[in-house]
Amino acid sequence: MRDPDFTLSAGPTTAYPRVLAAQARQITYHYDPAFLDLFRRTERKVAEIFLTRNDVLLMQGEAVLGLEAAARGLVTPGMPVLNLVSGVFGKGMGYWLKDFGAELHELEVPYNDSVDPADVERYLDEHPEIELLTVVHSETPSGTLHDLAAIGPMAHARGVMTLVDCVSSLGGIEFRTDDWQVDIAVAAAQKCLGGPPGITLMTVSEAAWERIGSNPGAPRASYLSMLDWKEKWLEGGAFPFTPSVVDMHGIEASCDQLLEEGLEGSIARHDLAARACRAGVRAMGLDLWPRSEEVTAACVTAIAVPDVLQDVQVRAHCRERYGVMISGGQGAGNLVRIGHMGPTANTLYPVVGLAAVGRTFADLGISVQIGDGLEAALDVLSTASAVAVS
Amino acid sequence: MRDPDFTLSAGPTTAYPRVLAAQARQITYHYDPAFLDLFRRTERKVAEIFLTRNDVLLMQGEAVLGLEAAARGLVTPGMPVLNLVSGVFGKGMGYWLKDFGAELHELEVPYNDSVDPADVERYLDEHPEIELLTVVHSETPSGTLHDLAAIGPMAHARGVMTLVDCVSSLGGIEFRTDDWQVDIAVAAAQKCLGGPPGITLMTVSEAAWERIGSNPGAPRASYLSMLDWKEKWLEGGAFPFTPSVVDMHGIEASCDQLLEEGLEGSIARHDLAARACRAGVRAMGLDLWPRSEEVTAACVTAIAVPDVLQDVQVRAHCRERYGVMISGGQGAGNLVRIGHMGPTANTLYPVVGLAAVGRTFADLGISVQIGDGLEAALDVLSTASAVAVS
Amino acid sequence: MRDPDFTLSAGPTTAYPRVLAAQARQITYHYDPAFLDLFRRTERKVAEIFLTRNDVLLMQGEAVLGLEAAARGLVTPGMPVLNLVSGVFGKGMGYWLKDFGAELHELEVPYNDSVDPADVERYLDEHPEIELLTVVHSETPSGTLHDLAAIGPMAHARGVMTLVDCVSSLGGIEFRTDDWQVDIAVAAAQKCLGGPPGITLMTVSEAAWERIGSNPGAPRASYLSMLDWKEKWLEGGAFPFTPSVVDMHGIEASCDQLLEEGLEGSIARHDLAARACRAGVRAMGLDLWPRSEEVTAACVTAIAVPDVLQDVQVRAHCRERYGVMISGGQGAGNLVRIGHMGPTANTLYPVVGLAAVGRTFADLGISVQIGDGLEAALDVLSTASAVAVS
Amino acid sequence: MRDPDFTLSAGPTTAYPRVLAAQARQITYHYDPAFLDLFRRTERKVAEIFLTRNDVLLMQGEAVLGLEAAARGLVTPGMPVLNLVSGVFGKGMGYWLKDFGAELHELEVPYNDSVDPADVERYLDEHPEIELLTVVHSETPSGTLHDLAAIGPMAHARGVMTLVDCVSSLGGIEFRTDDWQVDIAVAAAQKCLGGPPGITLMTVSEAAWERIGSNPGAPRASYLSMLDWKEKWLEGGAFPFTPSVVDMHGIEASCDQLLEEGLEGSIARHDLAARACRAGVRAMGLDLWPRSEEVTAACVTAIAVPDVLQDVQVRAHCRERYGVMISGGQGAGNLVRIGHMGPTANTLYPVVGLAAVGRTFADLGISVQIGDGLEAALDVLSTASAVAVS
Repeated sequence: MRDPDFTLSAGPTTAYPRVLAAQARQITYHYDPAFLDLFRRTERKVAEIFLTRNDVLLMQGEAVLGLEAAARGLVTPGMPVLNLVSGVFGKGMGYWLKDFGAELHELEVPYNDSVDPADVERYLDEHPEIELLTVVHSETPSGTLHDLAAIGPMAHARGVMTLVDCVSSLGGIEFRTDDWQVDIAVAAAQKCLGGPPGITLMTVSEAAWERIGSNPGAPRASYLSMLDWKEKWLEGGAFPFTPSVVDMHGIEASCDQLLEEGLEGSIARHDLAARACRAGVRAMGLDLWPRSEEVTAACVTAIAVPDVLQDVQVRAHCRERYGVMISGGQGAGNLVRIGHMGPTANTLYPVVGLAAVGRTFADLGISVQIGDGLEAALDVLSTASAVAVS
Repeated sequence: MRDPDFTLSAGPTTAYPRVLAAQARQITYHYDPAFLDLFRRTERKVAEIFLTRNDVLLMQGEAVLGLEAAARGLVTPGMPVLNLVSGVFGKGMGYWLKDFGAELHELEVPYNDSVDPADVERYLDEHPEIELLTVVHSETPSGTLHDLAAIGPMAHARGVMTLVDCVSSLGGIEFRTDDWQVDIAVAAAQKCLGGPPGITLMTVSEAAWERIGSNPGAPRASYLSMLDWKEKWLEGGAFPFTPSVVDMHGIEASCDQLLEEGLEGSIARHDLAARACRAGVRAMGLDLWPRSEEVTAACVTAIAVPDVLQDVQVRAHCRERYGVMISGGQGAGNLVRIGHMGPTANTLYPVVGLAAVGRTFADLGISVQIGDGLEAALDVLSTASAVAVS
Repeated sequence: MRDPDFTLSAGPTTAYPRVLAAQARQITYHYDPAFLDLFRRTERKVAEIFLTRNDVLLMQGEAVLGLEAAARGLVTPGMPVLNLVSGVFGKGMGYWLKDFGAELHELEVPYNDSVDPADVERYLDEHPEIELLTVVHSETPSGTLHDLAAIGPMAHARGVMTLVDCVSSLGGIEFRTDDWQVDIAVAAAQKCLGGPPGITLMTVSEAAWERIGSNPGAPRASYLSMLDWKEKWLEGGAFPFTPSVVDMHGIEASCDQLLEEGLEGSIARHDLAARACRAGVRAMGLDLWPRSEEVTAACVTAIAVPDVLQDVQVRAHCRERYGVMISGGQGAGNLVRIGHMGPTANTLYPVVGLAAVGRTFADLGISVQIGDGLEAALDVLSTASAVAVS
Repeated sequence: MRDPDFTLSAGPTTAYPRVLAAQARQITYHYDPAFLDLFRRTERKVAEIFLTRNDVLLMQGEAVLGLEAAARGLVTPGMPVLNLVSGVFGKGMGYWLKDFGAELHELEVPYNDSVDPADVERYLDEHPEIELLTVVHSETPSGTLHDLAAIGPMAHARGVMTLVDCVSSLGGIEFRTDDWQVDIAVAAAQKCLGGPPGITLMTVSEAAWERIGSNPGAPRASYLSMLDWKEKWLEGGAFPFTPSVVDMHGIEASCDQLLEEGLEGSIARHDLAARACRAGVRAMGLDLWPRSEEVTAACVTAIAVPDVLQDVQVRAHCRERYGVMISGGQGAGNLVRIGHMGPTANTLYPVVGLAAVGRTFADLGISVQIGDGLEAALDVLSTASAVAVS
C-alpha cells in the first residue's frame, strides 16, 4: 500500500521536518550525559508550553498511559468524582473511574456539544463532597471544546482537584495550566505539536503529588507508576526503566519548533485553518458535526456524513483516490474529520482537505458545491494576515 | 525565511522521501567497493529509463554541464548544424554552437509554440550538408514540447546526428532514446524523477563517441570532458575526479522510485496532473501560455500573466502568502508555471497549485473564477483512473 | 554536552543506519492502510526472529512493560512460581511475583554465575506444585546466560509454564521459542537488533493465553493489558490506543536488517565479537566479571573493576576523554560492560571498546597491558572467518 | 557489497551527522527565498573559514572544477608561471598550465617531500618575470604540506599572484587567506570539514578578478566560468545555472559544525589525531611515507607499504576483513593513508585505523608490533588535553 500524499488526520498527524530529522539522530545509551541533558531540557520546554511551574512528567507511552496512571494515582475507593462527558474520551474516563472505585458523578451532553460551565458550577455547589473533577479539554473524536478557562478556576475555588485531558489542544488551542489552576494535565506531541506519539506530556501540581503519595492504591513499581518517576527520576536522577530515546529526540524537536514560533502564533494559525475549513464546509452545503461554532475545537473540523453514507467509505475513498488520510469519528458518530494540527494547520492544507472530502462526497453521490466551498475557504485564508510557519 | 509548504516549481522540484533518505546515508570514499557498485548499478538504471543500450554517462554537474560538454565534443569549426528554437534553452544552444565554431542554421518559432516536424524535414532535405541537429524536447520555461518521435528518426535517416535536451521530460513524458535514434540525450533528475540536481544523466551512441573521439577540439583533461569519463571510468574503472557521492545516492533512489512505479505509470500520472491543471486554468478564465494544447508539455503548466502584473509579483505573493513556490518564465515571457514533476504530479497537487495561483491573481486584482477552476481540475482527477504513487 | 563518538553500551545501543532512516519517515495516522500493513508485516517478521508460530504481541512500551504485563496476566493469588535469580533482573521479577500474590520459590546464585539446569530439574521434581517458571535468559547487567535450551523443555515436560526475559539475547544469541517450548518470551529491539527502545517484542503460546484469559485479575482496559491487544487488535483489527508509529518504523527496519543477514550470521558475529573482547580483557591482565567463560553472554562483556575504583568513574572518564559510552553494572556489582549488540558486534568495535576501557584504567592508575590486550583481540578477529555486516 | 564500518579515507571522508541530516532536508526550488538566503549565508560562513574578506565563489562541482576554472581564467598564452611540484596534484597543475599556454617553470621535489620556501624565494628572485605561482598546500596523496605561511607573502611581495590548492587542509590545518596574501584559494568540504563533495569552495582577490576579467581567453558562458558566477550571481543575484541544492544543504551544515567548534579547536584536534597516528606507525615498526615529521600534513597519515606488497592489496584486505576503508597513494607511490578529517580526527579513530592497517599487514605476512603501535597512539591521545567534538 503506497504512503499517503497528505495526512490530514486527527493525530498522529504529519510531523514537522525537524522532528523527523531528530528521530534519525543516532540512538544513545539512556545514561549518556548527552541524553540526560536532553531529557532535562525537554522537561523545561514542555513546562514552557504548558505555562506551568508545576512538575513535568514525561511518561514513556502514549497519552492514555498518563491518563490511566493519573486516574489510578488519584482515585481512592469511594471518592466522589465529577466527570464531564461530551464525547468518547470523556465517557471512557468514567468507566475507568468506576473501575478504580470512585463514586462516579457525571454531567453528560450529546457528543456534538460541550458541558456548560454554569451547569458545572451548579453541580459542584450542590455536591460539595466532590473531590476531583475530570474533563477532556478538546474532545478530538467529535471536534468540540470545553471552556476550561471557566471550569478550572471554578473547581479550584471549591477545593476540587482537576485532571484534564488536553491531548489535542496543547500547542494549538489556548491552554494555561497555572492560570486555570489545573492539577494534572495530560497531553501528547502527535497532535498540535506535530511530533511523535509514544510519550505522555504531563504536569502535576504539588497538591496532586500529595494526594497520590498518600494513596496506598496508587501504582508503585509499575509501568503505570507516576511515583516511580517522581522518586527515581525527578528526585534521584535514575530512570525507572529505559526511556524511549527516539521519541524523546522527536519530542524535543517538536517543542523547539513550537517555542521558536511562539505559542500565540501557533494558536492563531490553528484558529485560521479551522475557520477557513468550517467556512468551506458550510459553503459546500455540508453540515458541521458540532452543534454550533462556539463549541468547535480548532484542531480538527468534524463534518457530518449524510445518512446514505458511512464514515468509513468516505475515509477509504478519500485515501485511495486522492491520497489524503482523514479521520472518522472513532465511535462519536457518523462523521469525518479534517485535522488542523502542527504543520497541517498552515497555508493551503485546509483547501487540500476540503477538496478531498468534497470531491469524495461527490464521487459517492452526494450533491456538494465544491467550488463554492474551496472559494470560501480561500477567502478566509486570504483576508487573514499571514501567520504560517513550517 | 521560512521554508515553503509546497514546492510546485519547474524543478528542482519536491523530491521523493526515499531520495531524501538516501541523501542522508553516510558518505563513503569514492573507491569504496560499495560506492563503485552503486555507480555501476545507477548507470544501468538510468539506461533503463532512457530505453537505451547506448553508454550512459553520469557527468558530475547540473545538466548544462552535459549539454555544454556534448556540444563542445561534437562541434568542429565550420560544421553545419541545425538548431531548433522554440524557447530559452533552444536559443541558448544556438549561442553555444556559434561560439564553438559551427555554421549555425536555425528554425525558430515564437516561444509559445514548437517547431513543426514537417518544417524540419523540409529543411533537412533542402540542406543535406547538415551534420548535427540540436533540439530541446521539453522547453521547460514555456511549457512546450517538440515531437521528437518524428524528428529523431527523420534526422537519423538522413545521416544527421542528434543532440537532445530532454532534461524536463525524462521520466514524466515519453522519451525513447533507441527507438527515436537519438545520439546524445541529456537529462537530469531534479525534474520528473523527483531527485536531486547536481548530476547530468546522459546517453551517447557509438557514432557520437566516434565523432567526439576524432574531434581534436573536444575537451580532454577537463571537467567538461566526456572522453575523460569514457577512457578513465567506462573503460578503466577509475574516476577522472571525485564524484558527487551524495547526489549519486539521491540519483539511484530516484531511479528506483521510477522503475518500481514503471515508466508508463509515471507518464500517465504526469499527463493526468497536467490535464487537470490545464482544465483548471481555463475554467478559472485564465490563459495557458502555449498556443494550443497540442504543444503543451506535461511536466509544467505555463499560465499567461495578465499584462497589468509581472510574473515576479505573482510568484512572490504566492510564496509569501500561501507558502507555495512556483516558477516564472525565466525569460520566455510574462508567465508563471506550476510544475507537475515526480511526487507533485500526483493526486491533489495540481489543485494546490491552482488554488495558490488563482487566489494570488485575485489578491492582486485580477478577476478569476477560482471555484470553477478548482472544480474543473477535480473533475478531471476524479474521472481518471487512479494512478498515483508516492 | 557533545554526542558520543562510539556507543558501546549494553543497550540502547548504536542503531543500524536503516533503522535511523526509517525513523525519519513521515509519521502516518495509525489507521492509515500503509501503517496497518506495516504493523502486521512487523509482527510476522518478529515471529520469524523468535522462531515461533505463537502469537506475536508488540506492546507499546519498553520491555519492562511486557514483563510486568505478562507477570500480572499469569499470576493468580497463591500460585506457586519458581523464579531463577542470577542477577538484577531475575531478582526484580521475584519482587513483582510476590507483589502480584504468587507463592514465590527461588533458586538464586551469585550475580556472576547462572543457575545450573540440573538444580532446576531437581527443584521442579521436588516441587511438582510449581505452575510457572520465570527466568532471564541473558542477565545483561552482569553479562551471564542461562541455559534455556535445557530449562525450557524441562519445564514444559512437567507442565510448568515459562515466562522468559530474552531482552538482550534475541537476535544475537540463539533463542528458539518453539523448540524450547517457551510460553511467553519478552524481548526488545534496542539490544542485539540494533533498533529503538520503546516497544516490547513478545510471543504468547495458546496455553498462556488461556491462563491469562481465565485470570480475573489479569489487566483489562489498561495500558498493561495483553488481553486488550489480543481482543481489539489481534482479533478485531482496532488498536486499543495509538501505537508508537515512529518506533514501529524503526522496529520493522531492525527486523529487516536481521532477517536479511540471517539469524545464524548475526549470532556468529555476536559470538566472535564477544570472544575477541574476552580474549582482550584477559590479555590486558584484567578480570572478567562472570565466574567462567561458560556462563558468559555474547551480547555484553562484563569486566570487573579493581576495588580501588568505582564503575562510575571508569564510565565517566571513558566517555569524556575517549568519546566512548560504555555501561556500568546497574546494581549487579562493581563492573563495567562493553556491549556487542547489532552494529557494534562487528569488525573493530571490540577493539575500540577495549582501547577505551584499557586506557581509562591506565589513566586512573591501574596497571594494564593495553597493547597485549588489543593484540589478543585482533588475533581472534583475524583468525575467524569474516562475518561482518552493516 | 556491504557498507564500510569505518571510512578513514583521505576524503570523501565520514560526514558529520548534522551534514547528513541537512542533506535529507526537502529540496527547494533554487529561486526559493529560503534557498537564496542559504546560499548567501553559506558564502559568508565559508569566508569566515577562509579567514578572508575576498569574494567567496561556490562553484557547483568538485574542487577540480574550481582549480581548472581558476587556471584557465588566470593563464594567458606565454605567461610565466612557477608551479611547485611535490606530488600528484602539483604535477597535474603543471600539465594544465602548459595546456593553457603558460611558460611553465617548476620546482620539483620527490613525492615524499615538500619544496623549501628558501628555494622558492631564490627562484622568484632569479625569475622576476614570473607572474603567477601555483602550489598545493596539502598534497593529500602523499600526506605532505607546503609552508604556505612563508610562500604566500613571499610571492605577494614580488607582485606574483598565487593560486593555492588547499582542498585537504582547509578547516583541519591552519590556512589564512588574507594574512598569507593568497589570491585564489580552492578548497572542498569532503575533507577536514566533514561535508559532501560536489562543491568547490573558493576565494578570489580583487587583483585576481581583474586579471581574469581582462583575459580574453577566460571561460565565459561556460560551466567553467568564474566570470559567469561573478556577473550573474555575485553582482546580479541570478544563478548562471541550477545549483546543487542538496550539496549546498550539506555544505552549510559542515560550515556550521566547524564554526561552532572553532577553527582553533578543529586544527588542534586534527593535529592530535595525526600525532597519535604517526606515533603508532613508528612504534609498530612501520615507516611513514613522508621524509620527515616536519613535512607531514595533519589531515592524513601516509604509511609506506613494504615492497613485497602493493597498496591495493592492503586496502582491499583492510576493507573486506575489518570493514575499514582507507586510501592508497593515487599514483604518489606504494603507500596507504589513514585519514584524519572532520569527525574521524577525533578520539579513537586513529586507533581504529592503526588496528586495521597493522593487523592487515600482519595478515599479509609483514612483521608488525601491533600492540606497541596501538599503545603508543593511545599514549599520545591520553596525554593531550581532550579536544574532541562530534
